[in-house]
Amino acid sequence: MKKIMIIGIGAGDPDYMTVQAIKALNQVDAFFVMDKGVAKEKLIALRRQIIERFIEGENYRIVEATSPERRRDDTDYKSTIDELNRDKQQIFERLIADELRDGEVGAFLVWGDPSLYDSTIRIIEAIAKSGRHDFDYEVIPGISSVQALAARHRVPLNLIGRSVEITNGRGIAEGFPPNVDSVVVMLDSQDSYRHVADEDVDIYWGAYVGTPDEILICGKVRDVMDQIQRTRADARRANGWIMDTYLLRKGGSTG
Amino acid sequence: MKKIMIIGIGAGDPDYMTVQAIKALNQVDAFFVMDKGVAKEKLIALRRQIIERFIEGENYRIVEATSPERRRDDTDYKSTIDELNRDKQQIFERLIADELRDGEVGAFLVWGDPSLYDSTIRIIEAIAKSGRHDFDYEVIPGISSVQALAARHRVPLNLIGRSVEITNGRGIAEGFPPNVDSVVVMLDSQDSYRHVADEDVDIYWGAYVGTPDEILICGKVRDVMDQIQRTRADARRANGWIMDTYLLRKGGSTG
Repeated sequence: MKKIMIIGIGAGDPDYMTVQAIKALNQVDAFFVMDKGVAKEKLIALRRQIIERFIEGENYRIVEATSPERRRDDTDYKSTIDELNRDKQQIFERLIADELRDGEVGAFLVWGDPSLYDSTIRIIEAIAKSGRHDFDYEVIPGISSVQALAARHRVPLNLIGRSVEITNGRGIAEGFPPNVDSVVVMLDSQDSYRHVADEDVDIYWGAYVGTPDEILICGKVRDVMDQIQRTRADARRANGWIMDTYLLRKGGSTG
Repeated sequence: MKKIMIIGIGAGDPDYMTVQAIKALNQVDAFFVMDKGVAKEKLIALRRQIIERFIEGENYRIVEATSPERRRDDTDYKSTIDELNRDKQQIFERLIADELRDGEVGAFLVWGDPSLYDSTIRIIEAIAKSGRHDFDYEVIPGISSVQALAARHRVPLNLIGRSVEITNGRGIAEGFPPNVDSVVVMLDSQDSYRHVADEDVDIYWGAYVGTPDEILICGKVRDVMDQIQRTRADARRANGWIMDTYLLRKGGSTG
């Protein structure tokens, strides 16, 4: 039987790797490396760096596959992602069928934590359920960008006894969600924090958190939003890509 | 100057420790160990196990302090926690003032991740802001029980492009929160998942996740809630304490 490991490698700092993830890396025969777009080279290099630093010995191979691109036209988001995941599933099936021998372990390395805004678990589960391939799979958690952000700002995610919502840019495009006072936003390419500028909201923003390029900004949204937008645009231009996350909080002073 | 480290040690499995947390442990002069109630001995033992396994050398000391108990009478929750945190703050201040010399590093080890449903960051920040003690502090993220749960069930926390809310038992006492389809519940001692039994909701429940005592149950809430409640009560009786978490999901079959 084949085995697939979906390994969370943390969000940026190689020191975010857990002992469990390091042990998992050392069992892997084939690493399936899928990256895309402008960040491709940088991200592949970071993955290679983690593999080389933490694996003892050289009994492994790296199999690169081209990740399908997400269509960014007028199609609705859910259909676009469904289509993207079908394409990815075909590629993953080919990798499992052709690039892994019986008894071997294949791995997908996932930035941050595989359970948060990542499709790898979903795709592997769909393949397992299809019954077309005989394999077992395991998920190894990793430090997410959400936790890295909170740690670097030294701020709790929730207020005492209160909830926190984790969402994406679209989740706050219509303002602060009802019934919560703490919202973490991931994958926002539209500077959506501007939508809550009218309200009394604090923002804890971070880019490349945990890496040497880390940038942290916090304050009232209305006071720092221009600075964040400018910093974000400059950093994306300078580095060719950006990975940023932020926490929005109402009533933070009572926390 | 003194330094305080708030170190996330992961949720249960010592292998959840990150490289960053292990490096931090090895800089510590004094570990401040605060635990309370029935779980006290077991949890202190687990902390000692982590300290002994990951620290090279013996240049550290463990300072135990009795954690104040939370009042469980009719006082409202927020006031109770405020009072508890004031008591804790007094103890933390005494530890920093009396048990740490200038230039030394003191540490609080936090189960899971310090940014989620833990008061240590909030209390240390309050002490720092008071200006009564001269120290710097740093937060090290850890694998939370939320991530451990998702990994062990091999399930994503969010549906595609959708939000996830992290809350406590009170957060679902009035039913499934509006506007979200995925809710993680921590710190629920009241079997509050029963409140959503009327709705079409899946539950992914786990206790002692990542430890040898781990128990996982999943299914429709209405089908498995009695089994979870019984299992929970039995496990708490057998072990003297329980640490459990669960994910509730609407519309999971489309995820």
